[in-house]
Amino acid sequence: MSIAAVKEPEAVAKEPGSAPNWVYLFDALPDLETQVKPTSWDEVRALLGGKGANLAEMTRLDVPVPPGFTVTTRACNAYLAHDRQFPPGMWEQEVAAMRELETRTGKIFGDPDNPLMVSCRSGAKFSMPGMMDTVLNIGLNDQTAQGLIALTGNPRFVYDAYRRLVQMFGAVVLGVPDEPFEQIIAEVKQERGVTQDIDLNAEEWMRITERFKGLIKSYRNKEFPQDPWKQLELATRAVFDSWFGKRATDYRNATAIPHDLGTAVNIQTVVFGNMGEGSGTGVAFTRNPVDGTNVLYGDYLINAQGEDVVAGIRNTLPISHLRQDMPVIYDEFIAICDKLEAHFHDMQDVEFTIEQGKLWMLQTRNGKRTARAAIKIAVDMAKEGLIDEKTALKRVTPEQVEMLLHPQFSESVKKEARAAERQLVSKAVNASPGAAVGQAVFDADTAEKWAKEGKSVIMVRPETKPDDVHGMIAARGILTSRGGATSHAAVVARQFGTPAVCGADILQINVEQKLFVVQQENREVEVHEGDWLSIDGGTGEVYLGQLETREPDFESEVELKTLLTWADKTRTLGVWANADYPKDAERARRYGAEGVGLCRTEHMFFETERLPIVQEMIMATSKARRLAALEALLPMQRKDFEGIFRAMSGLPVIIRLLDPPLHEFLPAHDQLVQELADLKVRLQHFHTLSEIDTALSEVRRKEDVLHRVRALSEANPMLGLRGDRLGIIMPEITEMQVRAILEAAINVKRSGLEVHPEIMIPLAGHVNELKVLKQLVENVSNEVFTEAGTTIAVKYGTMIEVPRAALTADEMATEAEFFSFGTNDLTQTTFGISRDDAEGRFLIEYAEKGILPDNPFHTIDRDGVGKLIEMSVRLGRSTRPDMSMGICGEHGGDPASIGFCHEVGLNYVSCSPFRVPIARLAAAQAAMK
Amino acid sequence: MSIAAVKEPEAVAKEPGSAPNWVYLFDALPDLETQVKPTSWDEVRALLGGKGANLAEMTRLDVPVPPGFTVTTRACNAYLAHDRQFPPGMWEQEVAAMRELETRTGKIFGDPDNPLMVSCRSGAKFSMPGMMDTVLNIGLNDQTAQGLIALTGNPRFVYDAYRRLVQMFGAVVLGVPDEPFEQIIAEVKQERGVTQDIDLNAEEWMRITERFKGLIKSYRNKEFPQDPWKQLELATRAVFDSWFGKRATDYRNATAIPHDLGTAVNIQTVVFGNMGEGSGTGVAFTRNPVDGTNVLYGDYLINAQGEDVVAGIRNTLPISHLRQDMPVIYDEFIAICDKLEAHFHDMQDVEFTIEQGKLWMLQTRNGKRTARAAIKIAVDMAKEGLIDEKTALKRVTPEQVEMLLHPQFSESVKKEARAAERQLVSKAVNASPGAAVGQAVFDADTAEKWAKEGKSVIMVRPETKPDDVHGMIAARGILTSRGGATSHAAVVARQFGTPAVCGADILQINVEQKLFVVQQENREVEVHEGDWLSIDGGTGEVYLGQLETREPDFESEVELKTLLTWADKTRTLGVWANADYPKDAERARRYGAEGVGLCRTEHMFFETERLPIVQEMIMATSKARRLAALEALLPMQRKDFEGIFRAMSGLPVIIRLLDPPLHEFLPAHDQLVQELADLKVRLQHFHTLSEIDTALSEVRRKEDVLHRVRALSEANPMLGLRGDRLGIIMPEITEMQVRAILEAAINVKRSGLEVHPEIMIPLAGHVNELKVLKQLVENVSNEVFTEAGTTIAVKYGTMIEVPRAALTADEMATEAEFFSFGTNDLTQTTFGISRDDAEGRFLIEYAEKGILPDNPFHTIDRDGVGKLIEMSVRLGRSTRPDMSMGICGEHGGDPASIGFCHEVGLNYVSCSPFRVPIARLAAAQAAMK
Repeated sequence: MSIAAVKEPEAVAKEPGSAPNWVYLFDALPDLETQVKPTSWDEVRALLGGKGANLAEMTRLDVPVPPGFTVTTRACNAYLAHDRQFPPGMWEQEVAAMRELETRTGKIFGDPDNPLMVSCRSGAKFSMPGMMDTVLNIGLNDQTAQGLIALTGNPRFVYDAYRRLVQMFGAVVLGVPDEPFEQIIAEVKQERGVTQDIDLNAEEWMRITERFKGLIKSYRNKEFPQDPWKQLELATRAVFDSWFGKRATDYRNATAIPHDLGTAVNIQTVVFGNMGEGSGTGVAFTRNPVDGTNVLYGDYLINAQGEDVVAGIRNTLPISHLRQDMPVIYDEFIAICDKLEAHFHDMQDVEFTIEQGKLWMLQTRNGKRTARAAIKIAVDMAKEGLIDEKTALKRVTPEQVEMLLHPQFSESVKKEARAAERQLVSKAVNASPGAAVGQAVFDADTAEKWAKEGKSVIMVRPETKPDDVHGMIAARGILTSRGGATSHAAVVARQFGTPAVCGADILQINVEQKLFVVQQENREVEVHEGDWLSIDGGTGEVYLGQLETREPDFESEVELKTLLTWADKTRTLGVWANADYPKDAERARRYGAEGVGLCRTEHMFFETERLPIVQEMIMATSKARRLAALEALLPMQRKDFEGIFRAMSGLPVIIRLLDPPLHEFLPAHDQLVQELADLKVRLQHFHTLSEIDTALSEVRRKEDVLHRVRALSEANPMLGLRGDRLGIIMPEITEMQVRAILEAAINVKRSGLEVHPEIMIPLAGHVNELKVLKQLVENVSNEVFTEAGTTIAVKYGTMIEVPRAALTADEMATEAEFFSFGTNDLTQTTFGISRDDAEGRFLIEYAEKGILPDNPFHTIDRDGVGKLIEMSVRLGRSTRPDMSMGICGEHGGDPASIGFCHEVGLNYVSCSPFRVPIARLAAAQAAMK
Repeated sequence: MSIAAVKEPEAVAKEPGSAPNWVYLFDALPDLETQVKPTSWDEVRALLGGKGANLAEMTRLDVPVPPGFTVTTRACNAYLAHDRQFPPGMWEQEVAAMRELETRTGKIFGDPDNPLMVSCRSGAKFSMPGMMDTVLNIGLNDQTAQGLIALTGNPRFVYDAYRRLVQMFGAVVLGVPDEPFEQIIAEVKQERGVTQDIDLNAEEWMRITERFKGLIKSYRNKEFPQDPWKQLELATRAVFDSWFGKRATDYRNATAIPHDLGTAVNIQTVVFGNMGEGSGTGVAFTRNPVDGTNVLYGDYLINAQGEDVVAGIRNTLPISHLRQDMPVIYDEFIAICDKLEAHFHDMQDVEFTIEQGKLWMLQTRNGKRTARAAIKIAVDMAKEGLIDEKTALKRVTPEQVEMLLHPQFSESVKKEARAAERQLVSKAVNASPGAAVGQAVFDADTAEKWAKEGKSVIMVRPETKPDDVHGMIAARGILTSRGGATSHAAVVARQFGTPAVCGADILQINVEQKLFVVQQENREVEVHEGDWLSIDGGTGEVYLGQLETREPDFESEVELKTLLTWADKTRTLGVWANADYPKDAERARRYGAEGVGLCRTEHMFFETERLPIVQEMIMATSKARRLAALEALLPMQRKDFEGIFRAMSGLPVIIRLLDPPLHEFLPAHDQLVQELADLKVRLQHFHTLSEIDTALSEVRRKEDVLHRVRALSEANPMLGLRGDRLGIIMPEITEMQVRAILEAAINVKRSGLEVHPEIMIPLAGHVNELKVLKQLVENVSNEVFTEAGTTIAVKYGTMIEVPRAALTADEMATEAEFFSFGTNDLTQTTFGISRDDAEGRFLIEYAEKGILPDNPFHTIDRDGVGKLIEMSVRLGRSTRPDMSMGICGEHGGDPASIGFCHEVGLNYVSCSPFRVPIARLAAAQAAMK
């Protein structure tokens, strides 16, 4: 029933075209729909706020909700727009709604004999947790408190409730700071010699309430209003005002919530779960939020108030126990849960109170859940027919898939640690996801040193500075006591994929003494340098000791695999993998890759038994020697390629020719100089001719290498003799690689498997480069095919990783049969930023100053790099309309970038094997947009 | 009269619509114009070839030209298109034209009593010097030779002419190689014991002629045809065929001349200048081709053949002498020269022969000239009214202006050297312009070593390889005996602007013995390591000893200055200069610069007295110390800026904030490592405590610096912490610079001058960078203005030098008030090529292989970098339509790039002060296109 049905004042809705409805009772949803004609649930939420809309919806579903009403966001906006005056008629409608609550509850607002008490809560369209204000227990005053004591027989409870009203009213409505209130409670506890709130009695709470009133008087020279109507009016104003409070404004700026939405105000009858053995209170999830199983999950307490359940001061009972305790209530509760799930099509997190045998639902919302639960619930619900497969795909984030595929602490391990009181922090900022176990270290130099010695290190700092970065890079995890999700530590950690927990202000860190102290209610913990810590950067938890991490096992993730098959049906974007070794290719295929988008041949060069041959090849002073070394490398490369072709039989495999500058395969310059100097010092101490002889020949050898290193050294190796330039200047290396690829392909084909080799040219920026190398590839192909007496189809393509290649993609496409975007290098050259020199260095200040919103090496820079990719797609297809195009840079595994790839019409993304499942989901979500 | 007027065969033109005219007599131009109706002189040249068209034009002007005719390019194309068959009617027309020549000369083709002799020369639309073939003296045979002897009384001349016919016919028509012919002459000379052709007598030339005939017989089993008509037919065919000869085809490929033009064939009566004292021959320029003065310039010989004048075997007479020798002929010649100049509107290079008192003009063409002459002639002719100012501007190339403004050998110095027989080579490849003087060195290591010792070095090699580049860079000039304009040496030299002469095959270089030998007719010269050489890379000349170079003096170049004022009236593109010091700015202004487009503040940092302070600033361990160092730098920077503002009073001055990475101001890392290693080795040998103490403190000092160098070291400094990133991370440096700029501007303004300071941000790639720094600039401005009690207008702009800036130019333009394209860095990042690592290294192979047609660091890469610039202009102006945009990279001084800048609508180019005049001309030429 709408406020229109309420008698006083006369409801305006009776006369259409007159003043609007500012207030809706929870059961007025049908009226609202008749009057406002919302076109979507979204519009209802915009008007009533998320909380108000859900309460109204529950009411419509005949779920028992304590009577209440919502003052609309429109009223808030009118108030804010007109000099903070309630819009005409609003207050009258609010009063009328209160009268209706009196009628329904049989209680009277302000009546000491049977007082009605209400809560006043903000509730915007989008959840802004903790950002706006709430006042509870409105309606209590010196008189009604007495009445309530008579009613409940529990003066301690009543004075606790009363002091909460005074405290909240003082803070929220009158702007008195919180500290002096807490100070008063602390003083009273000290007088009594107790430490816990629970130990204070009714008299003491009464005394506290009085002192709170005095505090307000001294701060604001105002009395705490005894008039319940005044309380209600001021609380309503305060909630409206809080929309433009600093916290809320900052939060909206940070989360891009529009400032013109306004907040609704929810006024709801207070019900009591502590009115004896027939009362109780609890919280529950309609399914298990940890593992996702379809079993009611929650706790309750008999004869208790809501806060007591979550405060953990009394031992709660598992929800299943309610079946014995109150079988009728239990059945009713189960039915309500089913109804809510069926209605909201999602697992619900509900709060309930039983007041003298009557079940009241106080709140329902979509329940938070672990990644594992999210996936299981989505898949189960789709199978149950509650949602369709596409909705199931939308319910899981790529990040949740990622969590399942990286080492993590299992819930049981964490539970055990909690039980053993090894949890230090349960709610710091989850700054960078992942589980990390290591020994605490309090400075960057030690972190780096210990890490070099092979130790696992958790770097602990109050906050981090650029000077700390070398230690942060070396650490397995990062833990700070100050700063949030955008602090230096958080930004660096995410850039390096290092797990991090930030802003854990419970830690009192003493850097000089290399320790931190945690004061908890019942104990004090000291952690010293070298002590083990386990942190969960995905949840913000910190544990003492070494928690066991669980390796992911894709095969056993049945629901995930099901979800991904649905994703495969939905997505249009291919998902390939970057794989340098047969074992990578095998994993990629298991994870669902449809091809290898990048096989980097240089990684093979670095293997222990090969590096000496590679170095010989580079040091060769004659072409004959170089060819001999290449000859020795050929069968090794061929074997690698055979393995990859076998693993990917039937699927395309793109092999990139050698890319890095040659000096990367030689010892470092400084090291050589140092070794030479050392050798020369030692030479002073040798006496026998043979000693000197040996040392001298060693000196000569090292000097040769140093000479070559110097000759090969470059000012900017990233932009130097590498990529296809190497193949043009030293064609013999390319010839060997092409031969190895083709011979391997022929061998595998002969064993009866299907092979689709594709040869990819790195770093090309001019079509003439592609022409020169295509000729070389053709020459070698002809040789190999003639020798083998057979041929094989090979595609020839190029990476697009310098801007010029993108700008001239139409020309590049005359030679290249496919494009693969090397977005790492493309980002470097487009920005003119060397990743090695920027990440963890000036890019951090760029992130802190908000100059670059995202790390462009993680998420594709749409405005710059993205523009080049779009241009390449358009130009390349203008020359070769059926051209295959993909991305093989790191961005290929980033969900936001995958969305971009889908939008610009790429054929596939290629990412690390571990990210293939993430990419499959992200690609499906992109297709549904 | 056209061939149509010739009697036999019946001319086809009489019947319109029948077979076309394939042949035109030189005086048939009016007929041709009636029949063909050419719309331009260009079309006439296309049909008759350049040579034929000029001969016809001279004939029309009533200049006495030996009778002749042209077989058209159309005939050539018909011949080539139809299986090398003369098109129907062509031969008959050629025969008819020959008959007309007989009529006009009174000589008969093949008649021993009075033989007509003709030359047969190719002549395409565009000059292709030496690329196609010529046969002279057609009509000579055993009988007519006797007749000619009777006529001239000079059997030696006749047999020399006859053997030339046989030799040319053998080589050109029958494809006998040239060497055996030369071998026969050499043998006969050996028998006679003489070394010069001139020493052979009539009997010997007769014998040689007979042996030539035998040579043809033995090589091709064919007799040399005695039938003059056969000679003519085969020579005509041979000229046609030569169009698709390898040399001609390669030449056209290299110079982008279309392959379908075809060549004309010019058949012309041979006239003789050696028929006694009333005969003679000469060559002349209608103006002085060396200095451009309007005086006839040339040489002649009485009783001589054409070749004798240029062969230099007899002492020629200056053309002025002809006035006494043959006053009537002289006057006629002067009148003809005037007529030709007036007609062709350019200085002419003419050949003439006087046959028994009758003057014949054999050729006229636009004369080649020095840069100085080109400018003077163009300006003089415009002043004389022969051409207009715009034509004068087109007559001079920017390269010619450049030659005048760089050190060069004066003509008098070169003449002196020639007189003293110090010229070694007069016609090698002018591979890279400029004059260089240095000591000969025969290997790269010595070149580098000597150069480091302060010596001037000319590096001499048979040819160069990539291993030689370090020496080539160190050398003042490069000289090779092999290879042409696209050889490694030539490419490297041009890339580094080093003068080079290549392919001087007269030098017999012995690298082992470190010397070269030059065999000249009358002497042998040996040049050893350390001997002085002077080379002129603009002309390909090589001289012994040290030739004096002349410094350019812009003020005295009166004609150039006149030409440039005309350029200024024509061009729409501004010309500014890059100037880091007041003296640069002063020069720039003298040379015509209209602003300073780039003042690089870092160059000031490198000055001897400042570098220690800069290093102190960088090494500072506290902010206070850094600020103190900056404080010390401030007045120095301010003084620099004051000087530049004064020099450019009234004109804009763009100052770029500090750009290079800080480690550039510290000692090199490798050097420090080596020095430390050496110091530690030496430590072993010290014995006294004080020695050790000193050494140790030196070690410590160097270690400190090394530590800082390492901390600042970057993998790719070009893409690292430099440019605006430096200003964002270390704002105090930027603050100092902005303060220095503003204080300087205010000081200069107070002295009564007009200042237009503009502050430019380097390397920005994201608009947010510009926002952050704009705030800083505004803050400092406000401080300075408040302190000074006055304000000054300052523009704020950015360089566009990374692709992202170009791609987001619309956003960049919201903050930037001007753009300046830093095309050096933009080219580096667009190509992904580090110039330091590529030029003189792999870019050389890229040029040799034709991968990159031009060095993109010299001439703007239109397809890639150019596309980004076009995009920036379009996007930038979409945000800020009146935005000023210019280019300040090295390309700003390159004529081709200046043309591009004009086309895309930039406002100005900024180049080095020395190139300002070049840019003024290039901009004018671009405007006229």
